[in-house]
Amino acid sequence: MDAVKELSYALDTFYFLMSGVLVMWMAAGFAMLEAGLVRSKNTAEILTKNVALFAIACIMYMLVGYNIMYGDAISSVIPGLSFLLGADNEVAAVIAGGEDAPYYSSMSDFFFQVVFVATAMSIVSGAVAERMKLWTFLAFAVVMTGFIYPVQGYWKWGGGFLDGLGFLDFAGSGVVHLTGATAALAGVLLLGARKGKYGPNGEVHAIPGANMPLAALGTFILWMGWFGFNGGSELMVSNVAEANAVSLIFVNTNMAAAGGLVVALITARLLFGKADLTMALNGALAGLVAITAEPLTPTPLIATMIGAVGGLLVVFSILTLDKMKIDDPVGAISVHGVVGIWGLLAVVFTNGDATLVAQLIGIATIFAWVFSASFVIWIILKVSMGLRVSEEEEYEGVDIGECGLEAYPEFTKGN
Amino acid sequence: MDAVKELSYALDTFYFLMSGVLVMWMAAGFAMLEAGLVRSKNTAEILTKNVALFAIACIMYMLVGYNIMYGDAISSVIPGLSFLLGADNEVAAVIAGGEDAPYYSSMSDFFFQVVFVATAMSIVSGAVAERMKLWTFLAFAVVMTGFIYPVQGYWKWGGGFLDGLGFLDFAGSGVVHLTGATAALAGVLLLGARKGKYGPNGEVHAIPGANMPLAALGTFILWMGWFGFNGGSELMVSNVAEANAVSLIFVNTNMAAAGGLVVALITARLLFGKADLTMALNGALAGLVAITAEPLTPTPLIATMIGAVGGLLVVFSILTLDKMKIDDPVGAISVHGVVGIWGLLAVVFTNGDATLVAQLIGIATIFAWVFSASFVIWIILKVSMGLRVSEEEEYEGVDIGECGLEAYPEFTKGN
Amino acid sequence: MDAVKELSYALDTFYFLMSGVLVMWMAAGFAMLEAGLVRSKNTAEILTKNVALFAIACIMYMLVGYNIMYGDAISSVIPGLSFLLGADNEVAAVIAGGEDAPYYSSMSDFFFQVVFVATAMSIVSGAVAERMKLWTFLAFAVVMTGFIYPVQGYWKWGGGFLDGLGFLDFAGSGVVHLTGATAALAGVLLLGARKGKYGPNGEVHAIPGANMPLAALGTFILWMGWFGFNGGSELMVSNVAEANAVSLIFVNTNMAAAGGLVVALITARLLFGKADLTMALNGALAGLVAITAEPLTPTPLIATMIGAVGGLLVVFSILTLDKMKIDDPVGAISVHGVVGIWGLLAVVFTNGDATLVAQLIGIATIFAWVFSASFVIWIILKVSMGLRVSEEEEYEGVDIGECGLEAYPEFTKGN
Repeated sequence: MDAVKELSYALDTFYFLMSGVLVMWMAAGFAMLEAGLVRSKNTAEILTKNVALFAIACIMYMLVGYNIMYGDAISSVIPGLSFLLGADNEVAAVIAGGEDAPYYSSMSDFFFQVVFVATAMSIVSGAVAERMKLWTFLAFAVVMTGFIYPVQGYWKWGGGFLDGLGFLDFAGSGVVHLTGATAALAGVLLLGARKGKYGPNGEVHAIPGANMPLAALGTFILWMGWFGFNGGSELMVSNVAEANAVSLIFVNTNMAAAGGLVVALITARLLFGKADLTMALNGALAGLVAITAEPLTPTPLIATMIGAVGGLLVVFSILTLDKMKIDDPVGAISVHGVVGIWGLLAVVFTNGDATLVAQLIGIATIFAWVFSASFVIWIILKVSMGLRVSEEEEYEGVDIGECGLEAYPEFTKGN
Repeated sequence: MDAVKELSYALDTFYFLMSGVLVMWMAAGFAMLEAGLVRSKNTAEILTKNVALFAIACIMYMLVGYNIMYGDAISSVIPGLSFLLGADNEVAAVIAGGEDAPYYSSMSDFFFQVVFVATAMSIVSGAVAERMKLWTFLAFAVVMTGFIYPVQGYWKWGGGFLDGLGFLDFAGSGVVHLTGATAALAGVLLLGARKGKYGPNGEVHAIPGANMPLAALGTFILWMGWFGFNGGSELMVSNVAEANAVSLIFVNTNMAAAGGLVVALITARLLFGKADLTMALNGALAGLVAITAEPLTPTPLIATMIGAVGGLLVVFSILTLDKMKIDDPVGAISVHGVVGIWGLLAVVFTNGDATLVAQLIGIATIFAWVFSASFVIWIILKVSMGLRVSEEEEYEGVDIGECGLEAYPEFTKGN
Repeated sequence: MDAVKELSYALDTFYFLMSGVLVMWMAAGFAMLEAGLVRSKNTAEILTKNVALFAIACIMYMLVGYNIMYGDAISSVIPGLSFLLGADNEVAAVIAGGEDAPYYSSMSDFFFQVVFVATAMSIVSGAVAERMKLWTFLAFAVVMTGFIYPVQGYWKWGGGFLDGLGFLDFAGSGVVHLTGATAALAGVLLLGARKGKYGPNGEVHAIPGANMPLAALGTFILWMGWFGFNGGSELMVSNVAEANAVSLIFVNTNMAAAGGLVVALITARLLFGKADLTMALNGALAGLVAITAEPLTPTPLIATMIGAVGGLLVVFSILTLDKMKIDDPVGAISVHGVVGIWGLLAVVFTNGDATLVAQLIGIATIFAWVFSASFVIWIILKVSMGLRVSEEEEYEGVDIGECGLEAYPEFTKGN
């Protein structure tokens, strides 16, 4: 039987690592999505932000964040700070069995967790695109991934008070997506809209993304990566019940994306008369965000509907934010924030353990903490480094100003 | 031993899920391949078709298709319609063992199957690109993925009469690829060629694709995804014999692609004097399609040759279709149809259980069913919604007309 | 227990196959990276080289290379030539157990190995981009993947004299990366610089890559694929100790890339005043190359530092090579060669079994063998086929001359 326990440990660890690889791949998805949806003059800079934030997230989460989120806490509200990345589990502890026996490598757990924090940070880069200073953004990434994210992560996944309250968030509609969107919102409010986005008489000018194939590719990558994001969050695959659970999560994740895409496409058709590709892509992502809070208890049909509502919401949210002159070039606040909240609320429809009160407290807590903490950091950065590039630099494009190179130096630009 | 059976179930399920993720990823491959091979003015629309067809395939196959293909049949020709997506397998049934004991999650089976039907549908979008109405195409996708594909799928993989006859099609050279290509052919014949493709005196005008890196990326994605497509179709990996079989399938899949690519590249060099990249890419895909009907019985060397013949065939097929004025912008009918037939015939060289008669009956049955059913649907759609965009819209590009946006709004167009 | 042994065999085989798929995917990473970093007029040709070299590598390694590298050797210096791809392992042999019992499919081993040789060859294509004849390059690929690579591979991984000496190279900083870079260096020295790269008074003219999103995508793909490259090189995952080891390798691989990226970005900022995206990308790749020689013995913090030094080195190496007028359009010689050497030397810091002498002998042997063998082949090719395209073809772009098509036919070019 000992060999079986070892083998089981190996399978769960390998499943965790493969899931982590898929989530890491989502970083490429965000990079391509955002690079596709900004103008060509700001493309190299958004790519630089995306690759750099991933690296920063890994380093800060290793040094600080992981140790805050899962270390020895001081109380259910105040996390501690431990050094967790030491020796991995002993064979004897695995063989011993029992409730607390480790059943997968703790290093594989770190790998899975570290790519999640990068996902949260990737959400921010899209919303502040085309006008935020690169180094200011990277400085925010240091604080966000090392401190802001891990604190609320501790409250739920680290066993803090939100977990105690019965707040349910399976794979992170709140902990990851709402968190990213909230930090982005705080930044966008301080940063203001891109020049020319909103006219003096309330009109909204579309600023089309430069490269639709990249946006579509990014969405496919995110869709693919989400199987690791949600599927890996089951944390175990090595017996019949768990294997069935992971399989259902895969199916529900896929169906929710499909539902979100179709409804967003039809909604856009009804509203605008056209099959708006960017809305369809955001619909798929909205479906994915919506199912992330609870991909296990719905049937596939219900999962499709949860995603479909997400697809509906995201279209109206994007239009509403534009009316409020909150300029989010890629729709990240709508996709990950508004629909993230929907996903957290939808848990009560299918999971008998969920309560609306606990879900609302969770939402309010995450929003309040992330918004206020982010706001303070953005203010400090505004005063110290400045948030926004100069008007001239914005006009010329941040690629030249920040990166000293162009994304497409040979292709003549139209605007 | 019970724990071993559970673990074995978990491994086979996990292998199925990972295979399914790779096949899902092929949707991105088709999207990139097709986006690279059409003109820039039609790129956003082909992307929209590709993301939307994937979502539609998932929903229709869940609602109808899967239940037709694997439900309680009325006869070996007429499938029934059951509702299959209920509770997953019980632990007790797994432990009981025996021939019929489930050894992987039925939900993981659905996941693996659903991404296959999306593959078949993706084949169609490329062949009808640049002139078919978007909503007509999506309406066809509803019928194709919910009905046309599942019926012939039942005949072979669902245990219908083609399976009874001894028709062999391991991973779907026929069930998936020939099916997709045949539906595409019916559509193309009714749709006609793109304006300017064929001159009045029989001359063929090349219409170059706008973005070769996307086409190459798409091919690499498909190549990668095919390991899941063929490798997962072994349906089991959890013992020595099965693990060896899956490994051989991976190797043979890879070698066939390599053989197809090299031969297509050399053939193009001999015919045109140039190393034609698009022919090389189609050669790799042809190799993959060719080996899909039987990736297990050939040696790697024979697999290379089966792929090589596919690479040769695809070049001449593309040239021949052009002579026949059958306009297929991406070569999908040649790659998946002509070479799909070759793959089905090649089974008889390496698999002693195959007979030429059974293979020919299978090919004829799939072609006759899919062509006639598709033709009827295309005709109905032509009368009701119309198949083809207006001449003006085709000239201006379907992106503006159908999607209301451009794929590359900032890059000046040459034609 | 027999079922457990079979299951263990299946898990290790599946892990090997998944790792191989990730490494195969690196071929797409190199293709995108190189397509992004060359000018648009040379893009289709570099894509053609990349897909064709992969196919050639697979065929040559199957026919010859694998049989040289792992066949029955004549001595510790002179490999033999066996035919290895026959029947896979018997169940009985697996069950028998013992030191020499096979614990994974030998066909999965071939799959994992064959994608490694393609990686080595992919390194070469970037360095000789934009001026080398396509068919000459492919002819070199035949010799490189069939003969030059396997011989040095035998010396280390096949059990030859470098292995006997205690030279340590876990996943191939030397066997793969230094080998690729050295063959590239020999080619570049004979080929000369691109027209216009170096001025008459020693000035270096930047030749910007045409498509930064592709370069970023390629880097993300390589980063992702490297988990298979290093993680699979542990060769086993099926017990607690091995699962822990593979997990640590995943974490260290990721951290080294992060460290390399951040340091290269900061270094470029200090040197040039800008956040140079291409340097950041090369920094990540440098971190990955640096950790490849020993991803198991460092702690994650040390791994970050090993990668960071790689990121520092790569920036100065790129600048230095340019001063020496060694024109490497994508920085491949710096990333894979210079940093590969660093990675091999860094083994002595964390692995007690390593000696500086053995590492230096390994580096010198690989360099001497690959450089001299490659140099001879390049010379023969220069005399027979010619290495370099005509001046006119170089000016017009090799896409038209070699491939007869353009990568972006519709996008107006600026230079």
